[in-house]
Amino acid sequence: MAKKDEKGITVAKEKNLIEWYNQVVTKAELADFAPIHGFMVIRPNGYAIWEKIQQYFDNRIKKLGVRNAYFPLLIPERFFVKEAEHAEGFEPEVAWLERQNKKEEKLAIRPTSETIIYDIYSKWIRSWRDLPLLINQWCNVVRWEIKQTRLFLRTREFLWQEGHCAFATAEEAKENVLKMLEEYAKLCEELLAIPVIKGKKSEFERFAGAVETYTIEALMPDGKALQMGTSHFLGQNFSKAFEIKFVGKDEKEHYVWQSCWGATTRLIGAVILVHGDNKGLVLPPKIAERKAVIVPIIFEKDKEKVIEKCKEIEKKLKRFNAFADLREEYTAGWKFNEWELKGIPIRVEIGPKEVKEKTAVVVIRDTNEKKTVKEKDIVRIVEEELNKMQKRLFEKAKKFLEENVVEAKSWAEFKKAIKERKMVLAPFCNTEQCEEKIQEETKATSRCIPLNQKEGKYKCIKCGREARIKAYFARGY
Amino acid sequence: MAKKDEKGITVAKEKNLIEWYNQVVTKAELADFAPIHGFMVIRPNGYAIWEKIQQYFDNRIKKLGVRNAYFPLLIPERFFVKEAEHAEGFEPEVAWLERQNKKEEKLAIRPTSETIIYDIYSKWIRSWRDLPLLINQWCNVVRWEIKQTRLFLRTREFLWQEGHCAFATAEEAKENVLKMLEEYAKLCEELLAIPVIKGKKSEFERFAGAVETYTIEALMPDGKALQMGTSHFLGQNFSKAFEIKFVGKDEKEHYVWQSCWGATTRLIGAVILVHGDNKGLVLPPKIAERKAVIVPIIFEKDKEKVIEKCKEIEKKLKRFNAFADLREEYTAGWKFNEWELKGIPIRVEIGPKEVKEKTAVVVIRDTNEKKTVKEKDIVRIVEEELNKMQKRLFEKAKKFLEENVVEAKSWAEFKKAIKERKMVLAPFCNTEQCEEKIQEETKATSRCIPLNQKEGKYKCIKCGREARIKAYFARGY
Repeated sequence: MAKKDEKGITVAKEKNLIEWYNQVVTKAELADFAPIHGFMVIRPNGYAIWEKIQQYFDNRIKKLGVRNAYFPLLIPERFFVKEAEHAEGFEPEVAWLERQNKKEEKLAIRPTSETIIYDIYSKWIRSWRDLPLLINQWCNVVRWEIKQTRLFLRTREFLWQEGHCAFATAEEAKENVLKMLEEYAKLCEELLAIPVIKGKKSEFERFAGAVETYTIEALMPDGKALQMGTSHFLGQNFSKAFEIKFVGKDEKEHYVWQSCWGATTRLIGAVILVHGDNKGLVLPPKIAERKAVIVPIIFEKDKEKVIEKCKEIEKKLKRFNAFADLREEYTAGWKFNEWELKGIPIRVEIGPKEVKEKTAVVVIRDTNEKKTVKEKDIVRIVEEELNKMQKRLFEKAKKFLEENVVEAKSWAEFKKAIKERKMVLAPFCNTEQCEEKIQEETKATSRCIPLNQKEGKYKCIKCGREARIKAYFARGY
Repeated sequence: MAKKDEKGITVAKEKNLIEWYNQVVTKAELADFAPIHGFMVIRPNGYAIWEKIQQYFDNRIKKLGVRNAYFPLLIPERFFVKEAEHAEGFEPEVAWLERQNKKEEKLAIRPTSETIIYDIYSKWIRSWRDLPLLINQWCNVVRWEIKQTRLFLRTREFLWQEGHCAFATAEEAKENVLKMLEEYAKLCEELLAIPVIKGKKSEFERFAGAVETYTIEALMPDGKALQMGTSHFLGQNFSKAFEIKFVGKDEKEHYVWQSCWGATTRLIGAVILVHGDNKGLVLPPKIAERKAVIVPIIFEKDKEKVIEKCKEIEKKLKRFNAFADLREEYTAGWKFNEWELKGIPIRVEIGPKEVKEKTAVVVIRDTNEKKTVKEKDIVRIVEEELNKMQKRLFEKAKKFLEENVVEAKSWAEFKKAIKERKMVLAPFCNTEQCEEKIQEETKATSRCIPLNQKEGKYKCIKCGREARIKAYFARGY
């Protein structure tokens, strides 16, 4: 028999979030450090979460008429320089291929695919009949991060989807940008049980090459904000740089209007940070590949009956992808720890008593609540408990968010709130200069300018000059 | 109104297969040439086929207990050189990253992932409890091909899946290798309607680093063979090079036994080549994203009634992902050509006559058969026709394969058969020397040594020395 697991989490989430996070990611076998600095391996337990995210989101975008495609990994240097702001924004993070000789063109591994995709769009789009063009790709990208890397949260390679759409009018493009922001919010709130704040990025934080960048931001337990998805209105910046023109119904040539939007494997990091506890991973049931585990409590004399009952329950709970852990080389206690660490939402315990009484013990991962249920009710109860858990995790995270967002009336209040790990709403002049000063003094960055706020006449929290909007600030990942 | 399409296929498949192929791929908007030499863009129509392949195969391997993961895009040079034969095999095709300085390690873009995955396996595998380890990844790979590239068939980047499994015993590994070969054959025959020949690769064609390579081979209309999937028995070659050891139940250390297997987006090229005709793409119904199109035949006075009926039929055929093409800017004839070119299996035509008589005209893509059916029977008939078409395409391809495989008794017969674009079965000594000579003289390569053949006492078709097996030869893509 193997000894009781030494693999458990050995540091409290409240004490040292980053160390706790690293332990959960590696011990729950979600990801691992690759043998190349800054790269990660997404292990099957982590990849299964990504698959749930993909299925959900892919289904949503297909309903909106978006189709998937695949564009080249490599991008010629000459495309990069076409949209000046874009090139400048990504240049420091680009990995280049070695050339055989100086005459060959320099090729970059895509850090994002606007330039190569839009070069191709200029070939595909001819007439208003070709619009809107709604295309998405699921792929890997490489950004040579200098900052400290963290599994899922910041790595030199990550997986993502990038949607790239072209429209005949600015209105349609803008509508798409906001529609997709809404989709990302839904993905986070409905699937991942993580509440988000929707807004627009400041001038400084805008995507390189975009007219406007929209974002959804979530708050992590240490008061740091995490960007969960972005949706960009590109205007005609790229269509002019790449000559993406169409003949309209008016028989004249026009440049298309564009949107693009993306979300990454970073979302998995957010799930771990937001929901996890000191036993390990807690998975919202909707993204748990296997939603229940059945563990036999075995005493030699009743062994066969118990095992048989476990198999029966496994069959009954098949729609939840439940599985009986019948391994003989581990104790029941070891298994409890193992599956708690790995975040299986529900554990069903079956021992001789349960066999005799036609019952089962159901244990809920997040509350640790234990209830004895009649065997005939088990499917219904597991279903109910999974639904309740999904809702409960969201409500808990929402309460945390609400309690940790404050409004600051003065610079002193602002600094104090950031120090106390809050997310702060404050009037902001939206200048690069002010943004940099705030960051220098507090390490906080502007996260977003919330949507649907009426413009007012405020004074910027930092410089005191006129400010027309309020923005959220927090430290970031 | 747009004029009748000039986008149709302008060359006969029988006349110039390659030119026909390029036209079908680009005009049916399956793929496009990327602005980087040797790279391709997989367009939504082509990617939808890949998604069907992924869904089918992913579902199959998950039933076998295989789980998906994701490993880094980049591979350090030091891993490459660990398995000498493997390194030598891939070296010429590797794309390297530019280094900032000579002290930095050289990094390659993965041409395949054995080395990086097995380095990581050596960390993950400790005990017999960790075995078998069954992992697959869906990803992109880059091989800097020197040969002429062709969309889907040979490009410098392609998409694939690579399964990498580790076992405690050679028997289990070998069983997995053959099991996966069987799965690839099923994928081709049941999903893609392409019959294949299963066999083992010759010594010369073996995967670099493998003990044995198994393959499935399909025959294209020009008599060239196409490798559709490979499954490799790696023995302990890599486990010894990467130190993948486990403590067995015997409490001793052992090296694991390994298998790996892969199939690529090249399969899409095979579908096009095998089933397509002079109107364009013909898709086996199982991989057609949209299995039926409804086209209104409009005369002004009955316009509304016809459109309404089309929408009704669209609803009825929803399970086939049918869609009504109600665009007013194109004629019915233009639409017929468009959807034939793009390979929609069934066309439903609705005009005033059909409205009046409560019927519909159903046209089958591959046979061009046209039948008038009662509206109330349309769901059943479409279903039947799709099933029949799937079967018919397979039978047709099977007949072609059977008619184009011959056995050669002499070198003269062999050369003649290859010249006549046949696939040839012949006794073979399985030496590198003979294989190279055959290739020099005929451009044919050994495709595979068919499974389950009894070893005999033959004379090699080329050198006349002793041969114990017969092998298939053909020109290849």
